[in-house]
Amino acid sequence: QIEDRSARGQLQASAALATLGYVATIYVLPTFTPFLARSGLTGKDLCKKGTASAEKEIPEGTGVIAGTMFLICVVILQLFYGRDSSDKMVDYLSALLSICFMTFLGFTDDVLDLPWRYKLLLPTVATLPLLCAYDGSTSIVVPRPLDHLLVAVGAGGGGDSVLTLVGRAVSSVFSITVPGKLGGVVLLDLGMAYMVYMGLLAVFCTNAVNIYAGINGLEAGQSFVVACAILAHNMHELRRGRDTGNHTFSAMLLLPFIGTTLGLLRYNWYPARAFVGDTYCYFAGMTFAVVGIHGHFSKTLILMFLPQVTNFLLSVPQLFKVLPCPRHRLPRMDTEKGLLVPSTMPYKSEFPVWQFLRSGPDGEVINLTLINLVLHVVGPLRERSLCTLLLALQAASCGFGFVIRYYFAGLVYGST
Amino acid sequence: QIEDRSARGQLQASAALATLGYVATIYVLPTFTPFLARSGLTGKDLCKKGTASAEKEIPEGTGVIAGTMFLICVVILQLFYGRDSSDKMVDYLSALLSICFMTFLGFTDDVLDLPWRYKLLLPTVATLPLLCAYDGSTSIVVPRPLDHLLVAVGAGGGGDSVLTLVGRAVSSVFSITVPGKLGGVVLLDLGMAYMVYMGLLAVFCTNAVNIYAGINGLEAGQSFVVACAILAHNMHELRRGRDTGNHTFSAMLLLPFIGTTLGLLRYNWYPARAFVGDTYCYFAGMTFAVVGIHGHFSKTLILMFLPQVTNFLLSVPQLFKVLPCPRHRLPRMDTEKGLLVPSTMPYKSEFPVWQFLRSGPDGEVINLTLINLVLHVVGPLRERSLCTLLLALQAASCGFGFVIRYYFAGLVYGST
Ligand SMILES: [Mg+2]
Ligand SMILES: [Mg+2]
Repeated sequence: QIEDRSARGQLQASAALATLGYVATIYVLPTFTPFLARSGLTGKDLCKKGTASAEKEIPEGTGVIAGTMFLICVVILQLFYGRDSSDKMVDYLSALLSICFMTFLGFTDDVLDLPWRYKLLLPTVATLPLLCAYDGSTSIVVPRPLDHLLVAVGAGGGGDSVLTLVGRAVSSVFSITVPGKLGGVVLLDLGMAYMVYMGLLAVFCTNAVNIYAGINGLEAGQSFVVACAILAHNMHELRRGRDTGNHTFSAMLLLPFIGTTLGLLRYNWYPARAFVGDTYCYFAGMTFAVVGIHGHFSKTLILMFLPQVTNFLLSVPQLFKVLPCPRHRLPRMDTEKGLLVPSTMPYKSEFPVWQFLRSGPDGEVINLTLINLVLHVVGPLRERSLCTLLLALQAASCGFGFVIRYYFAGLVYGST
Repeated sequence: QIEDRSARGQLQASAALATLGYVATIYVLPTFTPFLARSGLTGKDLCKKGTASAEKEIPEGTGVIAGTMFLICVVILQLFYGRDSSDKMVDYLSALLSICFMTFLGFTDDVLDLPWRYKLLLPTVATLPLLCAYDGSTSIVVPRPLDHLLVAVGAGGGGDSVLTLVGRAVSSVFSITVPGKLGGVVLLDLGMAYMVYMGLLAVFCTNAVNIYAGINGLEAGQSFVVACAILAHNMHELRRGRDTGNHTFSAMLLLPFIGTTLGLLRYNWYPARAFVGDTYCYFAGMTFAVVGIHGHFSKTLILMFLPQVTNFLLSVPQLFKVLPCPRHRLPRMDTEKGLLVPSTMPYKSEFPVWQFLRSGPDGEVINLTLINLVLHVVGPLRERSLCTLLLALQAASCGFGFVIRYYFAGLVYGST
């Protein structure tokens, strides 16, 4: 279905290496987990508290193995990529360098357990290779409802566009490309600010995965669903023959990512025999940021993260200590029924909106995470069912993201 | 003194970033060592056994900080490199990717304490980016004394060169370029075998640094001396205007390496407040391998490692358990005098060559390392003096390497 023959060959090579990555992760992971465990990189499964397996030490940070397998796959994959063009190789290698650097720093975080402020610093450092090698456009299309703020049809008639007062103010900082007589889009060249935007995107993606976590299979599972959704987007665009280079690039990186993630998921799925650690969250987030930036679909990318954004917004009052924040906000195990129920915080205000969020006989308020909210709405669930439900929610919201991307893009950007 | 103006600018940028790297390492290292110590990445200083500081836990694996600072410097440095040519950027980025991957895997080794067999596997994996991106020549010049084995002057007269019997056998595997009538060098195109050669070079360099270690300041110190020697070679060639691109590339990477190494050395020098760990040895070794491969002076590179090669050859009988091998072969602390003396192994044979290596009243044989041998010849030394002496030896042998390189190259390769 994809017209471009070289793109098809590259995707086939990528699919083959993805299979290899899956098999390699499955075989290599159990070889290295004893070393992780021996070095004290283990954790207890907090959602099993009160059950027989509560005290079991489970290897932590196994994302380092999936990340290494991924890197080996994509390094070999470069033999099939960009042989015709050094420019493509520069993009590819700088992408790999950022992912490798991020996985490395993620592993140091797992080992050293760095304080929270470094969680924002590390992705910024790891995006440097991407930013320094970036030589693409730094312009963004101004969405339709906003372009009238910057540009108006000139008073002289003839359909000439002129800058408005706001437009002139903005143009003193950023360069604005005004559409010609036949209409068209308004381009805003962000210049260096675009670099800041890319850095922020990396911080967003890595933390998006990292904060929506805590039950078996969720980190790797959500990354799997998001990667599949982006891959579907790439394939759709490739079939339409649009931006072939960028979407091939993205799909080539995502296939081995999906392969190694599936391999990891086999051990991380309920009941987890391995925890993925911050290493995996950073690795996955940076992979998403890299394909979004080099594939030039960063806005579509953000649309795939609706549950993560919701979870973050829900968490804000607790993260910034406006509301009391216990050390762990994971769901609580109801040992009698063997089901997970929302965990709660001691908050006794009579503020009416909390009535909906009250849980249990004490009338405490649930911890404000999407996981607890889902449990509160749906009722107590087994851990495996909860994870499946959350992944279904992720898939549905990715579908919803596509509707916005394809249906509303026409309204907002004047093109699909 | 360097004619090429763009090379001069690049070297100035590199020197500026090297200074930054030095300052950054000095400031950042003490910030992160408490995290290393808290995570159990500490070691006791075995050469202080029996003294007051013997039980002190010293942070281990601080090479991870020097390596990260180096990576940040060279990533920023790419802004000053290869803007005119994507081919250069591909070389640069694949070099960085290999160094980053190696530092990452080195840190996993420090944390997980992997078995010995992985010490050969990890550098091989980390060279993959370099090998996959390599598109330079895969030919080597056959040294003069050997080329007559492959090529002879033809019987037909007129000075034509023809292949000998051996030459024909070799040419069935590798392609041989025979010199024309005016003479010249014999080129042997190793093809894929050249890739194996590059992989082996990376394994050699990483382990060269790693096995010649154990006293305060030696790992970082020897790397500093070797890096300075290679830099001197690069500068010499740059002044002569030869191979400007390759030598600029090497010097640009070595300057920040020297800067961050010096920063690390401040803490690793006697009395060590930080151990560099396998991370640093892998990181340094891969940096040497990368500049040797991309700078096309891998033979000169090996000449800079004479003490390491000697140390390895000395160690062979013990490493392969022909002779008894105790767990640690570090020098022993003579607590009465506060001096280091050679450590010994229980070996009672009457084999005459061991007479020279007998030490102490028991007549035991010293452990076969260069460090012990130097102590045995020179006599007991303080740790700091021993390290200084070994570094002076390294500098002298690098000088000797240059004599071979420049004096004998004319004899062996027909050119200097
Ligand atoms: Mg986490
Ligand atoms: Mg070591």
